[in-house]
Amino acid sequence: MAITVVGLDGDDTLWHNETRFNLTQGELRDLLHRHAPEADVDGRLFETEMKNLGLYGYGIKSFTLSMIETAIQLTEGRIPASDLEVILGWGKRMLMQPTELLDGVEPVLRELSHRYDLLLITKGDLFDQESKLARSGLADLFLGVEIVSEKNVGSYRGILTRRGIRADEFVMVGNSLRSDVVPVLELGARAVYIPYHVTWSHEHVAEEALPQSGWYRLEAIVELSRLLAGF
Amino acid sequence: MAITVVGLDGDDTLWHNETRFNLTQGELRDLLHRHAPEADVDGRLFETEMKNLGLYGYGIKSFTLSMIETAIQLTEGRIPASDLEVILGWGKRMLMQPTELLDGVEPVLRELSHRYDLLLITKGDLFDQESKLARSGLADLFLGVEIVSEKNVGSYRGILTRRGIRADEFVMVGNSLRSDVVPVLELGARAVYIPYHVTWSHEHVAEEALPQSGWYRLEAIVELSRLLAGF
Repeated sequence: MAITVVGLDGDDTLWHNETRFNLTQGELRDLLHRHAPEADVDGRLFETEMKNLGLYGYGIKSFTLSMIETAIQLTEGRIPASDLEVILGWGKRMLMQPTELLDGVEPVLRELSHRYDLLLITKGDLFDQESKLARSGLADLFLGVEIVSEKNVGSYRGILTRRGIRADEFVMVGNSLRSDVVPVLELGARAVYIPYHVTWSHEHVAEEALPQSGWYRLEAIVELSRLLAGF
Repeated sequence: MAITVVGLDGDDTLWHNETRFNLTQGELRDLLHRHAPEADVDGRLFETEMKNLGLYGYGIKSFTLSMIETAIQLTEGRIPASDLEVILGWGKRMLMQPTELLDGVEPVLRELSHRYDLLLITKGDLFDQESKLARSGLADLFLGVEIVSEKNVGSYRGILTRRGIRADEFVMVGNSLRSDVVPVLELGARAVYIPYHVTWSHEHVAEEALPQSGWYRLEAIVELSRLLAGF
């Protein structure tokens, strides 16, 4: 069956994201090592993020709150408020950063938009994702935008049903096996996996755990057009 | 023209919200007065919230971050980290609270759902709003849920267009003149204003500033069914 609708993930598929979290996390590590030189900052932060995920959801505001919590707990309350203010500032800086597209994204999407309906399907903080899309310059290329709090079989099914899209005419493109590939295959749709050079531990799934067929792996989004033409 | 679709706001229309923010704000006032007895905590917090609105958007996480920022700045960094941890805890407590419906909401919505398509149209944090809806027990009564980052003419127009709803068959019901009434009237649809006993300053609009017709004021949601029947 020919593809008519292409779903595209945003973070680390169209624009850089995880590297920015990593940069800030590096700054947190340096800051906290001044108070607790031996501390496993990355481990503690990840623990805090996972503990808070069900309450906070994804996104920069959640990350900022978890950084502050980690900083207080890891220093047993010894961290001065002025350092916590610095962490607040990092969060704001992340929220203000311009949306930086991955190589080739704009021409590829422009070309695809003539042949397919494009849907941006991204998870995370509504406000932040809308703002990133607005600053990306890509908004006009999408027929629709779906920002969901979690990418799972239920949320993908909801999107396809609401928009009257059959699974066999839909392909999802993204950098997360867990969020962009596994649930989509379960619905009987196809998926294209384009890994980003950094993956958040939470999104990690071993490729061997996936079904053998129905999904494709590309090195870069510039190869997408040719792959879809062959479907 | 007869109404076919009823849009309903969530916060302070279907479930209590602002009173919870107010309660927490009272606790912040007490906490900060211990460090700065003369400080105008409410004024400073509102200033911080307004300054951050364009970056953070609405919701409990944004409120928590603004409380922490206010606490640090108002005490000129003298507040101990342990007090900031208490503020973090207030945010989490707010996120965990059960959804408490206003009087009569459930039977009214149940009855209306037999006669109209009901849409929940709410602004704020996606994750938090979805979670509140899930805990409200009302989810099944809605044909659709629209969570927007801001309620303005553009976002309402988007919802009506996407769902193929004509303005003259749509009525919006909510507690905010600014968010639930003014933009809806601009589109040529009708609106029902049901004030909540507390209104966040940011949402305040003088009733005199509104058009003379096209909107109705009710004291409580239990009167809604009779009003709509007369349309």
